[in-house]
Amino acid sequence: MKRLAILGSTGSIGQSTLSIVEQFPERYTVATLAAGRNVDEAYAQALRWRPKLVSMATEELASDLSQRLRKAGVTGIEVAHGTAGTVACSTHPDADFVVSAIVGVAGLEATHAAILAGKPVGLANKECMVAAGEILTRAARERNVPILPIDSEHNAVHQCMRVGTHAEVKTIWLTASGGPFRQLPLEQFAAITPEQALKHPTWVMGRRITIDSATMLNKGLEIIEACRLFDVPPSQVRVTVHPQSTVHSLVEFVDGSILAQISVTDMRLPILYALAYPERPASNLTFDLAALRHLDFEQPDFERFPCLRLAYEAAEKGGAHAIALNAADEVAVEGFLEGRIPFTGIPRTIEAVLASTPEAHPATIAEVLAADQLARQMARALVA
Amino acid sequence: MKRLAILGSTGSIGQSTLSIVEQFPERYTVATLAAGRNVDEAYAQALRWRPKLVSMATEELASDLSQRLRKAGVTGIEVAHGTAGTVACSTHPDADFVVSAIVGVAGLEATHAAILAGKPVGLANKECMVAAGEILTRAARERNVPILPIDSEHNAVHQCMRVGTHAEVKTIWLTASGGPFRQLPLEQFAAITPEQALKHPTWVMGRRITIDSATMLNKGLEIIEACRLFDVPPSQVRVTVHPQSTVHSLVEFVDGSILAQISVTDMRLPILYALAYPERPASNLTFDLAALRHLDFEQPDFERFPCLRLAYEAAEKGGAHAIALNAADEVAVEGFLEGRIPFTGIPRTIEAVLASTPEAHPATIAEVLAADQLARQMARALVA
Repeated sequence: MKRLAILGSTGSIGQSTLSIVEQFPERYTVATLAAGRNVDEAYAQALRWRPKLVSMATEELASDLSQRLRKAGVTGIEVAHGTAGTVACSTHPDADFVVSAIVGVAGLEATHAAILAGKPVGLANKECMVAAGEILTRAARERNVPILPIDSEHNAVHQCMRVGTHAEVKTIWLTASGGPFRQLPLEQFAAITPEQALKHPTWVMGRRITIDSATMLNKGLEIIEACRLFDVPPSQVRVTVHPQSTVHSLVEFVDGSILAQISVTDMRLPILYALAYPERPASNLTFDLAALRHLDFEQPDFERFPCLRLAYEAAEKGGAHAIALNAADEVAVEGFLEGRIPFTGIPRTIEAVLASTPEAHPATIAEVLAADQLARQMARALVA
Repeated sequence: MKRLAILGSTGSIGQSTLSIVEQFPERYTVATLAAGRNVDEAYAQALRWRPKLVSMATEELASDLSQRLRKAGVTGIEVAHGTAGTVACSTHPDADFVVSAIVGVAGLEATHAAILAGKPVGLANKECMVAAGEILTRAARERNVPILPIDSEHNAVHQCMRVGTHAEVKTIWLTASGGPFRQLPLEQFAAITPEQALKHPTWVMGRRITIDSATMLNKGLEIIEACRLFDVPPSQVRVTVHPQSTVHSLVEFVDGSILAQISVTDMRLPILYALAYPERPASNLTFDLAALRHLDFEQPDFERFPCLRLAYEAAEKGGAHAIALNAADEVAVEGFLEGRIPFTGIPRTIEAVLASTPEAHPATIAEVLAADQLARQMARALVA
């Protein structure tokens, strides 16, 4: 029985993780939940799963949850809050496996703490790897702690990598849907509205990741994530645009064989893979291969999607530049959604922040967070 | 250094194997060559590779080769002939690995003898597995001898299978080019000429395998081969038509993940994989994934390709029926190429022979060969 700490339990990945626990009660149980701001959902989850500890974003939310649990006569569930609460969830002695699914750098400290505590991590939070991949993977290697990627591309890569050794990998090919503007003429990009950008062709996701998918910055973050997770240089990570999102990624080996992973576009599959690895439990997440007709591929257009080029530059420099790429993008996306900058202002903002970022390799999470704040300040000044 | 016994050295797979030896002189050397009827080529190979033993199909050919070698002043190369000669090649004490690439059941005894002698086999001869798969795999299991498939589909399956356990495999999906008549209306099949059938869209191969590809009986043999090689029932092997022959096959796992293998259509790649397994040496057999645009798939049409249905029936019954499928087809294809039966006569002949074949499971190679002869006699009577 694996006892899970779920960081970001009320978000989309958290809820999908709980639906996997529901489907496999003989395999998984819930130890702790780090929930954020949604008290209603956190309360419902606490009642249903009876974890040892639930953490909320703030003290007020935590005390609200405590009161509701007390009124319902529920005992034995501790309630905590803030970063300390999230860390308490991820390092709880009853947790055997940590699902790290808090969006942004907020989950960083708790994920790092989990690795230091020797707990295997299923990582759905790509910002963790982008901002602190060098620190996290070093800690994981030193303690022999597995980090299993939960986003669909890196999960696919993880599967394909099993067919050879690390030294036999030539190129990791991340597939990209290309987003809604794959075929839009370059001169129309400046006029793209938030409403247009929020319509993703294949995945239903949060607002920031949907915009990141439209600029392809999301794929840029994944390039950096792949470099860190699989310990390869940026030159060994390439992108192929595959509008159907059926092939989730591919790995090319030095002998000439390419392995590809195909499955339904449902996050429960990579979650189950990460939870069960190296086993594969039978699931109902079946892809109907007999109904498959066409798979299309094309080269990504670096002119229309300058964020890809910026990501390669940030990946090459690493450290503070990778942090700045992510931080500046988050601020720029907010600015775009609030109507303060145009769609094409997103890469312009990132490029300016990267240009002003000094080369540095933060060695601690505190240094990472400081570099993150600095980049956000620069980006905010540019967006304002 | 792996010392190879190459059975069928003057054929297409044999020559490709030697080109791999040429490319990787630090990895492979030639111990023995079983060559067949082409004395010129066998002589050239003997001069180039200086094996310990060369076997020819007949005594006359062997003495011809001996004389040529003597005239050239070459010493230290033994010359043998016939089945005994082929077996001597495959069991030679200096051979570490046997490439079994003699077409048809002719290579069967030598392949069996190699396994009994504990030598790993790279198997390019699918008739071996179809006719005697039950015997060969049992012998290999008992002696813990690896059999590595060299044809592109099963080689792809072997690669994809590494991503999970045997029990986690749900379905093996063999890809089929569909042959030249994939889109021909059913009513025109009876008028197909040998010239039309000998034009294969993607692979350049021998005459029988090209016709087998046009009837899809080739895929039928591969279904049986997959059942034997990977120890699964016919219900776990399916076919998807993929005209580009880019995806060489796929494996679907019970959790919902499907792994696919992609590479150039060049037999040197599966040969290298089999020789080097579990390693992957760097090769120049590169597939240009950046240039990939479309992959198409469709369901196989069992009405136009009745050989597929017949193969499933033979796979289900196994033993003598699998033998009869292969033997009857070989005779029927000859009859078609000689203009004695129409294209649609091939499945009719096979169906009639299968219907007259008693259920039996030959336990020895001699029994296999007897069942093979019986089926051929029945087929010849039908074709005449």
